[in-house]
Amino acid sequence: MIDESGRETKSDRARQRILEAARVHFRGHGYRSATIRAIAADAQIDPSMVMRYFGTKRDLFTAAVDLDLRLPDLTGRPRAALGRGLVEHFLARWEGGDDTLVTLLRSAATEPDAVDVLRQVFAEQLTPAVAQVAGPETAALRAGLVASQMLGLALVRDVLALDPVATASPAEVARLVGPAIQRYLTGPVGPGTAAVGAQRG
Amino acid sequence: MIDESGRETKSDRARQRILEAARVHFRGHGYRSATIRAIAADAQIDPSMVMRYFGTKRDLFTAAVDLDLRLPDLTGRPRAALGRGLVEHFLARWEGGDDTLVTLLRSAATEPDAVDVLRQVFAEQLTPAVAQVAGPETAALRAGLVASQMLGLALVRDVLALDPVATASPAEVARLVGPAIQRYLTGPVGPGTAAVGAQRG
Repeated sequence: MIDESGRETKSDRARQRILEAARVHFRGHGYRSATIRAIAADAQIDPSMVMRYFGTKRDLFTAAVDLDLRLPDLTGRPRAALGRGLVEHFLARWEGGDDTLVTLLRSAATEPDAVDVLRQVFAEQLTPAVAQVAGPETAALRAGLVASQMLGLALVRDVLALDPVATASPAEVARLVGPAIQRYLTGPVGPGTAAVGAQRG
Repeated sequence: MIDESGRETKSDRARQRILEAARVHFRGHGYRSATIRAIAADAQIDPSMVMRYFGTKRDLFTAAVDLDLRLPDLTGRPRAALGRGLVEHFLARWEGGDDTLVTLLRSAATEPDAVDVLRQVFAEQLTPAVAQVAGPETAALRAGLVASQMLGLALVRDVLALDPVATASPAEVARLVGPAIQRYLTGPVGPGTAAVGAQRG
């Protein structure tokens, strides 16, 4: 929150400190092992204030892992470059300092709340973006296929570190994986939609 | 172990009971929360015997999640059907009752031992199988790309349950994802290997 003079309020700074400490703890320790007490200590704030600002540990988690894919408007892009462009966007987004996606991915393994956040990002961000270029009927299916490849890529690069895929440059990965994403976005996806795929692809 | 009369030995049955109980606990509670005491109780055996048979909790974990992909010999298969066939094999393998892969995937998020097991399966099972059809030079890269798509598919279907990919039949998924796997197995994978890809693909 910015007050009328353009300065952040004190409570806003406290919230930011808490969120930053929470991200570090959830990422490093996982949801279950992270404690409000330790997060509050790192944020140099009383634990009761953490609860006052964010409610439960679950609410704090949801606020801390708020994931904005920042998907660009795909409609204005050259259709044949959509796949490669989307891979480049995802790699820049989550390997450029913001590792919220990987934190979520790690937490999703054991934490239903993290699964819920990822499902929401899928439904509210990825599927609508895919619908822009592929139409609404097949958007959820196409978005699910895109998600399977991109999340698997995050797993292989950032969790399992399987070489040489893990150490390949983003441009190299985009060149290798782009055609699969392109097909998921614009190719045929069903017995009844082959004509649509051919028409649009 | 089978003795000379063809019967399983008593210690072999005890080992099996421990492994089965361990799988249930590691799958349900995750590596960290699972305890030797609870596993021993379920297997109706003294905790000291669990340690005697398997050593540490870490050793028990490694034995319980022993993952055999049971990859078929790919050399005798029609080349153009390799991608679809491999997707069908993976889905039948891990959705047909043996959920070791999903247990490992969940554990890998927080457990370095699970990461090690998956890295070993990748290096000792998947990469050699890919080398059979693509040659040794590009096998690790191709196998990494295959792993990214197949592990992401397991995530989307079995952890996140994103519809409609999660509820699509294995045959449907093989039809949709097969072309991407086919490209990773037999298509071009590098600036220097485009000719190889064209030649072999």
